[in-house]
Amino acid sequence: MQFQSVLDDIAAALAPELGREGKVANYIPALARVPAQQFGIALRTGDGEEAHAGDSTTAFSIQSISKLFALVLALREMGEKLWDHIGREPSGNPFNSLVQLESEQGIPRNPFINAGALAVTDRLVSAMDAKAQMLALLASLCGEPIDIDEEVAASEAATGFRNAALANFMKSFGRLDNDVGKVLDVYFHHCAVRMSCVQLARAACFLSRDGLNPLSDERILTERQARRVNSLMLTCGTYDAAGEFAYRIGLPCKSGVGGGIVAVVPDRLALCVWSPALDHTGNSLLGMKALEMFAAKTGLSIF
Amino acid sequence: MQFQSVLDDIAAALAPELGREGKVANYIPALARVPAQQFGIALRTGDGEEAHAGDSTTAFSIQSISKLFALVLALREMGEKLWDHIGREPSGNPFNSLVQLESEQGIPRNPFINAGALAVTDRLVSAMDAKAQMLALLASLCGEPIDIDEEVAASEAATGFRNAALANFMKSFGRLDNDVGKVLDVYFHHCAVRMSCVQLARAACFLSRDGLNPLSDERILTERQARRVNSLMLTCGTYDAAGEFAYRIGLPCKSGVGGGIVAVVPDRLALCVWSPALDHTGNSLLGMKALEMFAAKTGLSIF
Amino acid sequence: MQFQSVLDDIAAALAPELGREGKVANYIPALARVPAQQFGIALRTGDGEEAHAGDSTTAFSIQSISKLFALVLALREMGEKLWDHIGREPSGNPFNSLVQLESEQGIPRNPFINAGALAVTDRLVSAMDAKAQMLALLASLCGEPIDIDEEVAASEAATGFRNAALANFMKSFGRLDNDVGKVLDVYFHHCAVRMSCVQLARAACFLSRDGLNPLSDERILTERQARRVNSLMLTCGTYDAAGEFAYRIGLPCKSGVGGGIVAVVPDRLALCVWSPALDHTGNSLLGMKALEMFAAKTGLSIF
Amino acid sequence: MQFQSVLDDIAAALAPELGREGKVANYIPALARVPAQQFGIALRTGDGEEAHAGDSTTAFSIQSISKLFALVLALREMGEKLWDHIGREPSGNPFNSLVQLESEQGIPRNPFINAGALAVTDRLVSAMDAKAQMLALLASLCGEPIDIDEEVAASEAATGFRNAALANFMKSFGRLDNDVGKVLDVYFHHCAVRMSCVQLARAACFLSRDGLNPLSDERILTERQARRVNSLMLTCGTYDAAGEFAYRIGLPCKSGVGGGIVAVVPDRLALCVWSPALDHTGNSLLGMKALEMFAAKTGLSIF
Repeated sequence: MQFQSVLDDIAAALAPELGREGKVANYIPALARVPAQQFGIALRTGDGEEAHAGDSTTAFSIQSISKLFALVLALREMGEKLWDHIGREPSGNPFNSLVQLESEQGIPRNPFINAGALAVTDRLVSAMDAKAQMLALLASLCGEPIDIDEEVAASEAATGFRNAALANFMKSFGRLDNDVGKVLDVYFHHCAVRMSCVQLARAACFLSRDGLNPLSDERILTERQARRVNSLMLTCGTYDAAGEFAYRIGLPCKSGVGGGIVAVVPDRLALCVWSPALDHTGNSLLGMKALEMFAAKTGLSIF
Repeated sequence: MQFQSVLDDIAAALAPELGREGKVANYIPALARVPAQQFGIALRTGDGEEAHAGDSTTAFSIQSISKLFALVLALREMGEKLWDHIGREPSGNPFNSLVQLESEQGIPRNPFINAGALAVTDRLVSAMDAKAQMLALLASLCGEPIDIDEEVAASEAATGFRNAALANFMKSFGRLDNDVGKVLDVYFHHCAVRMSCVQLARAACFLSRDGLNPLSDERILTERQARRVNSLMLTCGTYDAAGEFAYRIGLPCKSGVGGGIVAVVPDRLALCVWSPALDHTGNSLLGMKALEMFAAKTGLSIF
Repeated sequence: MQFQSVLDDIAAALAPELGREGKVANYIPALARVPAQQFGIALRTGDGEEAHAGDSTTAFSIQSISKLFALVLALREMGEKLWDHIGREPSGNPFNSLVQLESEQGIPRNPFINAGALAVTDRLVSAMDAKAQMLALLASLCGEPIDIDEEVAASEAATGFRNAALANFMKSFGRLDNDVGKVLDVYFHHCAVRMSCVQLARAACFLSRDGLNPLSDERILTERQARRVNSLMLTCGTYDAAGEFAYRIGLPCKSGVGGGIVAVVPDRLALCVWSPALDHTGNSLLGMKALEMFAAKTGLSIF
Repeated sequence: MQFQSVLDDIAAALAPELGREGKVANYIPALARVPAQQFGIALRTGDGEEAHAGDSTTAFSIQSISKLFALVLALREMGEKLWDHIGREPSGNPFNSLVQLESEQGIPRNPFINAGALAVTDRLVSAMDAKAQMLALLASLCGEPIDIDEEVAASEAATGFRNAALANFMKSFGRLDNDVGKVLDVYFHHCAVRMSCVQLARAACFLSRDGLNPLSDERILTERQARRVNSLMLTCGTYDAAGEFAYRIGLPCKSGVGGGIVAVVPDRLALCVWSPALDHTGNSLLGMKALEMFAAKTGLSIF
């Protein structure tokens, strides 16, 4: 398939819509000042073909997309034991809700809501230097060094009262092993990783290759684990819009409030789109449109 | 692939477990007296191959699997307008919960929870003789007449206070167009349809054929609609266990408390398993195991 | 104390505000067409003094004030056994909410929310001709016949989907002994009783007389029961505004969406105010103001 | 009335029950090691009569009873402005629930649930040296110095993850003006005040004297404020058991998990009971019994 021309077509079709709708995340200054009129798209196939268009090499804050890689680190470390106190079901509630956590005794519904990612981070903190390992994993997948935007991490920490509430709440149920402050610090740093569409398409590509690193063929996850991560992305990866993504796009996706969305076509390719303006569900508005166009143009869908 | 031997292997492997765990639905006598020690499995590929094993021709109460076919009838009738007051997101709450319905003003989360299916039934009641059309659709898909267990329908009606609460609750928000009693009557009759694994595998096969009836090549749904129904099954089709099904099985499924589960492998085949003993999520315990074995043995998964 | 002049002063002070704020209940035509510009107030002391002002002899729909007398009938019949499956705590949720009922297994929080009143009605239906007994009780307390507005009762029944949802929901938990339709019918008829301020002040007067009928000295409730009914009115009698009533007025009250509010000053008197325009909590806007003025002018408060 | 003999009778009647039922609060060591077999009771009338029995001069951790005095400090400072972002309604949910806080945008239901007391503390922190002022107020009411158990305060801080969650949650809604850590520190110190029954009966006595300090006749609150504090105690003062207290005891009360309960008979007296073993609602089991006996023996009730 001529992926480059598909991506070019999508970028061209969306160009007139840049910055017209949606709203850039503004809860911290470093995100609020990102210009809305940007759009990038990149993909990498399982056999190494790459294509990209638009602002595809501009680094942005990956935010919740880091939850995907934190999950991968934790599954590598702990395997299925990870699920002892973390669920795998869609939450049906806002990503930062405390309600469900209360009725379910501090056990988060899945690793992609904030509470679940904090629980995953807690496990990482117990087992490794979690900031360094995150960067090492991403670098090994992208073939180039990845860094953290310390300004973003500091802003997240200074304003992250809701996450502090979630972490303290889980701690009150005995669901975190480590110091709340330490867990939050690592979590905020993971959210503050910055990467481009090209880098993220590479970094997610192993999920379309049954778990094998596309650069080195090193095994990142077992085939079964890779497929299961894809299934979690599909059912839980896009905040409150998982059903909508499955319905309209039909691919496992993980989004972040920085405006990025990573998508996987199992056994074929990984894809990353980015555009900072978000819809009311916190997902990139043009990112979703781009993915819907991609699915329609290529016929690639898991359903 | 040698599907017949795969199904034979699964049936043989599960034979020692029949009736050992789980609990047959007992809220109405007609379901409670179904012997637990039964297991059937059947599939039909898109190009017409069939295979089956165990009690695969025994008719059982399809219960919530009828929600799948009610949705199909409604999508044929109304297209995307169906979604005006029915959501497409996983609910994260029990299938018969009223809580979410209250906070969301009587709009059900998706067509596969009870509230959503009642809303779908309401639309059918407005547009057609919904009992007759349900049976006609199923007969056209199976190639043989299908009927309703009137004893089950009557029992459902006599004990269906929770469903009556849901329907009255939606009516109080102005979300049902028709008389509550009429909607409930049709809903209970749809739940009381009886079919075998072989029949259900045939009936669902069009979902693996981009919407084409496997017997007549008549178009039941558009390709896009068929794929979207599959996506709804994956995210919402198995009560509170959608995430677990996606994680362990990786196929779109729709289950019922009669112990049946229909699964679809897009572009390949449809499958039905049945065993009456349920787990705590209301899904067939051995049915889930059988599907997990099937996915593992065949490598068929959408992820 | 010169109660007549107190009531005259209140009526005069509120006259300019009649119909200026608030909204008459409009969910059924018979309530919607009640002119907003009406205000009545009446009291009866324990030793038989009466005073009244404004539209104090105009009959209005007592609505939820009937819950008070249904509770009295049930306490007389069953004593403390009434509380087996009905709570006595404030609900903290809207009066017609189903949420709490779900988490608390169909046991209503208190007898003054709709669910609780339906449960009380269910017990009455088991024990007596509940419509006739309600009218007989009220007549014996007022010294004159009381009747039911059948148009209101019929309208309530025709539009009472939320109450039907509540009743079916409790029935689904096994919390109602009688047929749902029968319970609803009696409940709607109780709500449709019509009385004037003068009549209601008399009818509630026994609660300020340790349970003795002011006309006959017949014992309606034991002293302890009467005091406990007063305490339930204070903590649960005014929908979501029980705290506000206690804070601003400091008297046990029971209100209805017809615009009436009954208040009790233990060991002194009972009082009824009526004005049809409601505030956002469903309580009579001028009724609350009148009670606040009464408490301020007389210094009568339980605190 | 012979209050001394009433208290003696109550102490004698309850002696055989000491330590038989209930459970001492055990979430921190300093509370867990308090011997269960203790009971004290004390009262002070508006005109200065005192009576006490049992362990009435043993100091205990006042815990949530401090919320009463924090409220008094805040009302003195801010008057009705205090209610700008704090409600006055019973919560219907556990005292440390985050659920309602989420649906109500971080505004706590009332000043006696933990969230509400944290909000009150936040206002105090803005206006005064809140630890010193609390001790000064209590000393002026008791006529002797009062201190804080620093071990308890430190333990509360070390284990108070739920309160940290509540405070961070409110902060995330912009409902706290001060640093979360500072607010928590003051809150934990207020909870760790230790006083005896005799001291607390004196300290609460102004609430039965229309707001006048019983020792100095200094005005602590206006009459209206004092009555309103009493109403808040009645509707919200005893965790989830406010309705039960009103029903069985009929007096405004404020309880703490240290096992103390303060009660007020408006225009008559204030009373304090203490016994460390708690019932499932977190209120002193024998304390409630003692209050019920007191109300029955004296006929003192507000209803």
